[in-house]
Amino acid sequence: MHSTMVDVLIIGAGAAGMAAASRIKRLKPDYNVTVVEKTKYASFALCGIPYLAGCTVKTIDELLYYKPEYFAKKRGINMLLEHEVVGIDKNTQTATVKNLKTGDTIDLHWDKLVLATGARSRAPEFWPEIETYENVFYIKHLDTGDQVRNYALHLPHGSTAVVVGAGYVGLEMAENLANLGLKVVLVEALGQVAPRALDPDLAEIVRERLESKGVKVVLNAPVKEFRGRDGRATSIATEEGEIEGDMFVVGVGIRPNTELAEMIGARIGETRAVWTNEKLETSVNNVYAIGDVAEHTDIVSGRRVWRPFAPVANKMGYTVGNIIAGRDAYFPGSVGTAVFKVFGLTGARTGLSKKEAEKAGFTPVEASLEGSTKAHYMPGAVKIKLKVIADQDTGRLLGAQAVGDSETVMWRINVIAGLLTARATVWDLFYSDLGYAPPLAPVWDPLIIAARLLMRKIGPRPVKQ
Amino acid sequence: MHSTMVDVLIIGAGAAGMAAASRIKRLKPDYNVTVVEKTKYASFALCGIPYLAGCTVKTIDELLYYKPEYFAKKRGINMLLEHEVVGIDKNTQTATVKNLKTGDTIDLHWDKLVLATGARSRAPEFWPEIETYENVFYIKHLDTGDQVRNYALHLPHGSTAVVVGAGYVGLEMAENLANLGLKVVLVEALGQVAPRALDPDLAEIVRERLESKGVKVVLNAPVKEFRGRDGRATSIATEEGEIEGDMFVVGVGIRPNTELAEMIGARIGETRAVWTNEKLETSVNNVYAIGDVAEHTDIVSGRRVWRPFAPVANKMGYTVGNIIAGRDAYFPGSVGTAVFKVFGLTGARTGLSKKEAEKAGFTPVEASLEGSTKAHYMPGAVKIKLKVIADQDTGRLLGAQAVGDSETVMWRINVIAGLLTARATVWDLFYSDLGYAPPLAPVWDPLIIAARLLMRKIGPRPVKQ
Repeated sequence: MHSTMVDVLIIGAGAAGMAAASRIKRLKPDYNVTVVEKTKYASFALCGIPYLAGCTVKTIDELLYYKPEYFAKKRGINMLLEHEVVGIDKNTQTATVKNLKTGDTIDLHWDKLVLATGARSRAPEFWPEIETYENVFYIKHLDTGDQVRNYALHLPHGSTAVVVGAGYVGLEMAENLANLGLKVVLVEALGQVAPRALDPDLAEIVRERLESKGVKVVLNAPVKEFRGRDGRATSIATEEGEIEGDMFVVGVGIRPNTELAEMIGARIGETRAVWTNEKLETSVNNVYAIGDVAEHTDIVSGRRVWRPFAPVANKMGYTVGNIIAGRDAYFPGSVGTAVFKVFGLTGARTGLSKKEAEKAGFTPVEASLEGSTKAHYMPGAVKIKLKVIADQDTGRLLGAQAVGDSETVMWRINVIAGLLTARATVWDLFYSDLGYAPPLAPVWDPLIIAARLLMRKIGPRPVKQ
Repeated sequence: MHSTMVDVLIIGAGAAGMAAASRIKRLKPDYNVTVVEKTKYASFALCGIPYLAGCTVKTIDELLYYKPEYFAKKRGINMLLEHEVVGIDKNTQTATVKNLKTGDTIDLHWDKLVLATGARSRAPEFWPEIETYENVFYIKHLDTGDQVRNYALHLPHGSTAVVVGAGYVGLEMAENLANLGLKVVLVEALGQVAPRALDPDLAEIVRERLESKGVKVVLNAPVKEFRGRDGRATSIATEEGEIEGDMFVVGVGIRPNTELAEMIGARIGETRAVWTNEKLETSVNNVYAIGDVAEHTDIVSGRRVWRPFAPVANKMGYTVGNIIAGRDAYFPGSVGTAVFKVFGLTGARTGLSKKEAEKAGFTPVEASLEGSTKAHYMPGAVKIKLKVIADQDTGRLLGAQAVGDSETVMWRINVIAGLLTARATVWDLFYSDLGYAPPLAPVWDPLIIAARLLMRKIGPRPVKQ
């Protein structure tokens, strides 16, 4: 054991891992911080993959905000890229790490271990046969974006891409593949697109947009198997019949990479991700979990949630960095904001839907309306659909959803996300002094109208603070 | 006196007055609600005038969301347009109202009186000579927009418009007159444009944009007098010399129309507007004041403020409607959000500047940064400037300002405005779960980066709630 040196071992160089490593080195430059990463990338943004596939982003390098060398040279972090943890012992606090290029192994001691091992696609679990087909893709890593694009660009004119799953990744993939000139069929197991983001009525607007742009949407169609020959898939068998295609992209189903956590006996939570407390500690001494491998608390409901989203991962990384460096911090959780843009249409949600709020024990009331993004007399004013949900008994805001042809849809949801984080009420929303100028916003913003509608049900009196 | 009938008399049919009248009739259809208005317009939006002047809006009718007939026929409000209150007696609770077309007068009794008399330009107070010139304009009413446009369109090619005052109205007028093909000189008494909205460093970005679009900006130039002959002004004399022009638009200096309030002895507050308590009552029994004639409380500092902005006026109207209809409500105040868009650039502020926060007794710290509106690798990502101010001792958010070529500048400020209304902290901002998707936002939004910078000074620990 070193006398003053503290060994911090971080497994996984994604957003969470690198945010943690950077924060620790900033606060404690003398700590010995090592990051072990299977791939050759660090601080990567898998969220950019659909845009890489669709040529909006030209190269993988553009997706990397910092090069791995930056972390090593400028921040003094030991970067072990293309290394994998092959053994781990919580008693000696040692990990055995294998160099994937040379096959050599080394043992690394930790005083603090951070699991930032991320998540992975369940596609090969669900459909093992896809590994035998060269034209079925699911997100493995940044390279997947390149591979999808290269395959798509070499298909003959008029070819069809089948996208499985109409969640965020599926929607973004559908648009990007359509932009490359392919016919696109979007296949979803459930009865609506964006099933985790939007209520069915708002999702229907997204489906209509997809169809109007030539994307065929097939709902209620769980995929039973992929069929093909000579190493190429030619169709999927679904509950709604067989769907043929020239290439297939699976954008559905991910799970946390909990194997290492399980190897050292860390508790797995009710969400199937690694359990953490608000200090981001696992159930094992000196072991933390952050990012897509870890669960955390929903600020609105108080329930445990697993939300594998980059901003949450970054904030967990930053927070655990503070904690490991000895500062007084904790991770309060998230409120479940999620957004997408597809064919010009922005969809966004935050907090709970009315159904989710009922399940969480609230007495939710909902305001649902169509409103204008700007003063009605200004060019460029657009109608958007908005729902806001609040608790009948306390007036507390619980969630919101919106869809429309304006990026301000996301920003209206962001206003609610901020208010949810601050545990604010419908009266706080009503009296929120949002900016007004004719070219920018209407005098009664749809958000304020929603609050007014909710106050009809909840009452007009702000809670005194 | 009627046995059950309640007489409500509202003076002024602007946003505040009509919001109050509509709310009362909705809750108490049997109340006798009368609105007295000098002009022929109701529920008007003076904020649209620069856009009427610049032909973005074609007719006055477009600025009116509802026609006056709508309020009379659909909402059962007695609309006395082109009527003026010429006498008022608080003991008998009676107003003498004159029909401006016929000259007839009638006496109207009130059980509840609402002063919604608005504000007016101080231009003729400052420079009485302008009333003798046909080519000097200041905002009197909606017609001003038509008059400015008509005059501008009849000037010869190459003519110059001089706009006095570089506040919101002046900036919007400058752009709209430039769009009509005029050369524009913008003259400001203080040392920066947007002096009430932005700190000097951010205002400088706006000045540069104006100049790059051909608007000549003259700062530190208080106007001493207007000069002219034959009923037309030809120049203004300023501290920075004489400035010639073919037409002049004054967009500076307004004051509340407190005359009626003073006639009945209602207290005038420290801001020179009518004092109100949080029930929007004046110091006179059964008399309320709302909108641009009334002062209210700043939620951030607790101080009395006068903020003649349409959204505040609407909310005061809605709130006083609830109160007069017997519901349990109060008006908590505003946080001072103000926004503008000029030549593509959006400027926005909310809450206190660092200087204002110091004056209000806080110990403010500021984060100032340039950030990207979207993921750095996406087309359309734009750099914006953002400042966020928080209190060193408590972490409470105090204000924010931003400027950039993106309407999301206003929305970032709106997120802060919501959090200020909810009295939230810098930790609430940091952990605010803002939406992220590459085409919509960066993973570390400039707002979250600002919070992180502030936490360096204030500390990383969220306050437990």
